[in-house]
Amino acid sequence: MARTASGALLPGIVVDISAKEPMSAQLFNALRQQIKVGGIDPGIRMPSTRTLASDLGISRTTVATAYEQLKSEGYLIGKEKSGTFVTDVLPQALSLQNVASPELGPTDADLETDLAMRFDDNPLKPRERTSRTLPFNPGIPAVSEFPSQVWSRLMRPIVSQLAPSGIARCPAEGAIELREQVAGYLANSRGVVCSTDQILIVSGTRQALLLILLGLSNPGDCGWTEDPGYPGTSVSYNLFRVKPVPVPVDGEGLMVDEGIRLKRDAKFAYVTPARQAPLGHTMTIKRRVDLLNWAHETGGYILEDDYDGEYRFGGQPSPSLQSLDPDGRVFYFGTFSKTILPSLGIGYLVVPRRYIETFRSLLDAVSRPPSLATQLTTAEFIATGAFEGHIRKMRSLYIRRQNELSRVFENELGPLLETHVLNAGLHLLGYLQDGQDDRIVANKARSLGLFPRPLSDYTIDAKLRSGLLIGFSNMSEDSMPRASRVLRRAILESRNA
Amino acid sequence: MARTASGALLPGIVVDISAKEPMSAQLFNALRQQIKVGGIDPGIRMPSTRTLASDLGISRTTVATAYEQLKSEGYLIGKEKSGTFVTDVLPQALSLQNVASPELGPTDADLETDLAMRFDDNPLKPRERTSRTLPFNPGIPAVSEFPSQVWSRLMRPIVSQLAPSGIARCPAEGAIELREQVAGYLANSRGVVCSTDQILIVSGTRQALLLILLGLSNPGDCGWTEDPGYPGTSVSYNLFRVKPVPVPVDGEGLMVDEGIRLKRDAKFAYVTPARQAPLGHTMTIKRRVDLLNWAHETGGYILEDDYDGEYRFGGQPSPSLQSLDPDGRVFYFGTFSKTILPSLGIGYLVVPRRYIETFRSLLDAVSRPPSLATQLTTAEFIATGAFEGHIRKMRSLYIRRQNELSRVFENELGPLLETHVLNAGLHLLGYLQDGQDDRIVANKARSLGLFPRPLSDYTIDAKLRSGLLIGFSNMSEDSMPRASRVLRRAILESRNA
Repeated sequence: MARTASGALLPGIVVDISAKEPMSAQLFNALRQQIKVGGIDPGIRMPSTRTLASDLGISRTTVATAYEQLKSEGYLIGKEKSGTFVTDVLPQALSLQNVASPELGPTDADLETDLAMRFDDNPLKPRERTSRTLPFNPGIPAVSEFPSQVWSRLMRPIVSQLAPSGIARCPAEGAIELREQVAGYLANSRGVVCSTDQILIVSGTRQALLLILLGLSNPGDCGWTEDPGYPGTSVSYNLFRVKPVPVPVDGEGLMVDEGIRLKRDAKFAYVTPARQAPLGHTMTIKRRVDLLNWAHETGGYILEDDYDGEYRFGGQPSPSLQSLDPDGRVFYFGTFSKTILPSLGIGYLVVPRRYIETFRSLLDAVSRPPSLATQLTTAEFIATGAFEGHIRKMRSLYIRRQNELSRVFENELGPLLETHVLNAGLHLLGYLQDGQDDRIVANKARSLGLFPRPLSDYTIDAKLRSGLLIGFSNMSEDSMPRASRVLRRAILESRNA
Repeated sequence: MARTASGALLPGIVVDISAKEPMSAQLFNALRQQIKVGGIDPGIRMPSTRTLASDLGISRTTVATAYEQLKSEGYLIGKEKSGTFVTDVLPQALSLQNVASPELGPTDADLETDLAMRFDDNPLKPRERTSRTLPFNPGIPAVSEFPSQVWSRLMRPIVSQLAPSGIARCPAEGAIELREQVAGYLANSRGVVCSTDQILIVSGTRQALLLILLGLSNPGDCGWTEDPGYPGTSVSYNLFRVKPVPVPVDGEGLMVDEGIRLKRDAKFAYVTPARQAPLGHTMTIKRRVDLLNWAHETGGYILEDDYDGEYRFGGQPSPSLQSLDPDGRVFYFGTFSKTILPSLGIGYLVVPRRYIETFRSLLDAVSRPPSLATQLTTAEFIATGAFEGHIRKMRSLYIRRQNELSRVFENELGPLLETHVLNAGLHLLGYLQDGQDDRIVANKARSLGLFPRPLSDYTIDAKLRSGLLIGFSNMSEDSMPRASRVLRRAILESRNA
């Protein structure tokens, strides 16, 4: 105990001269602790710095430093001419450290916001977090084929040599090196006509949708979605109180006439023209022109998601809507998650010229760009040709795997599953026999360690045959017979259920 | 003269590798000058970045940076597939800093959305894209001190050994490995009391604000901001039509009484209690308790931005508001951009328990997580102690640099600048003599190659002395006298202007 000639007696204050922690910090911590637990009474006068220094056998500067710090944090108060006092704010208030206790009441989010209401129709559910690499999961590329060694070799000098000027900041719209490579890639491979200026680096499709809706939507606007289609579109629309209008899809892609009949003055039309998700059709040129005309006549915006556009298994990809657009009404976006790695967190959004500044500012306002080292490595991956080589290799691998899976299904499942091979993408479609609920089959399959997705999850009003999306990209040919037999069991057991 | 295999011959372009001015800035200035005076003809094609880099014997990144800056200021125009061209707009128009593509019609964004309206009071401007590493720029850490070799060594096995299961997907809330390390770090160093579940990995402060406002705000809500304070808060509020209420700040931090008087039923209170941005005060315990009481009584939310909290130069950091909060009304967030690298793109948001699921879903709906390899490397950087060591080293470096800069200012600037050393953060405050406009001085300094920020940029209604935020963290002690003399010139020349 430190004895003091005047002022408070200070219990339990010990300063260890041999400790690594500076003595002033030790003293500060000890005093603060005592004030917090009431070991030093509120309102009491503290010993002078001289007195306490002498009591503890330390320098007066050390004590003064600790006192200053305690003052700056409000534990001590200096009063002119009369000394230093412990705050009289109640200790209870100071020591209310009982957070993090699970007994907290029910959420009040529902009361405080209409978030819940906005998601009544289309609940905002966490996506599945597990089972991502289980067999048949659609949308996972062949991750084990990723050229990690090449990537690592490209990244090493980037990380090691990042000069001060390079690592200080990345502009909101992304690194120029990556944007130039993306512009070149999109021009050559995807028929996108844009300057580097128009490209924003985003984390993925959902951030692209966020920016568009944040920038251009008003509550109460309407937006077309494909039905069946990517469920994330409605989630994004709902976040901004934009009403999703499901528009049917046929073999030519989105039925533009139907969209016009349902809601001509929608502000947005979300489409996957390269490879309709999930049915796999390519949008015909006629439909593309119809859609562009609609946008032109009504002032609507086309949100072109180049979903799986890179994985076509025959012929050249069709021209993007973006490249056909004389009027700058198309926002084009895509991601490297299927062509490089799902965990890369890098995508791109091409905005019409007149929105460049607005969208750069919006992006700057809502996020920081992906790690610069990752961006620069991605740029090098493209620039060196490794990217193109990887895609080419994957394309032939996926053709083989899809063909093999389809053959194995015929052997193992026969009439239980009517297999539809698609000419693009990372999954095929398997239609179930009439009367089987695809969600029940998918759940059963999950319980047996497979991860096909029920087609029902992609529909809103559309009446489709019951079926499964079955990924083939991330499984070896060897593993297919066994997985097929397990799927057979799931189908049969669901039937009896 | 730089000779080019293709594209324009560039006269009089010289880059001095030994000069203090960054080479990209030198190149930018030289090219701009030549375009302005007609030394490079309007409409002509520029050499590719690769060609010019090779001609001048400098890196391609340097050239690309200069080109991008010239594009953003309208001197150069990128044309798809054909390269980069000198604008043919008349030189008069150029000096008006017209946008990059002067041939485009007016934006129709204004008509189609109320985005413009929302930003009337607080225009959504792109942040400065250049000059990030110029001397005196506040908020840039000592990037050249970053242990790139350590980082690279940690990252290599992560990239090379990423197993299929690991790289398939990262959950929306971030990698568990990183979230565990962040939880430990926040508990030990920042006094944050939370479980790993409560932590979301975000790209930075702005994404944290985005999530909170997207989840909890309704149009017409009000939110307190610190005045003076971080301008990004109002930008985020405005994006969601939340009305910013500027609340004054004094030496104890946000004046909670004033906030209550101005707008008791605001829904949000944004604060930087560890180290008020930009004045540097630590919020006192009394104010912390007042603020928590306000939140408790009104159902408001506290947005605790742990801005520069790690860089305190004396004593221990104060307990976070989050740790004092019995009621789960505090959202705590921070970023690694000042403690690891500005270009890392990784931050964290700690949400109250009852919001865990909602906020995970929100994050999943608006973005993909940062690159998994970067997340895992960050986790290793913390786990191995390299992070703590780096912070400790930087802390003493910054103390030295701040003291030295303050000493140099006294010598070189005398009464022209009244220096206030802060006990935390990466900048000091320099007050100008009465009557000097800090924005004019800052602009003048910019033109001379320095990047201090005017205090006025951080104020809304607050009447403060005219002053500058002057970063000391990213400059060597050797360079201080010269930079100070340039600042002296800027101050004197602004005075005469």
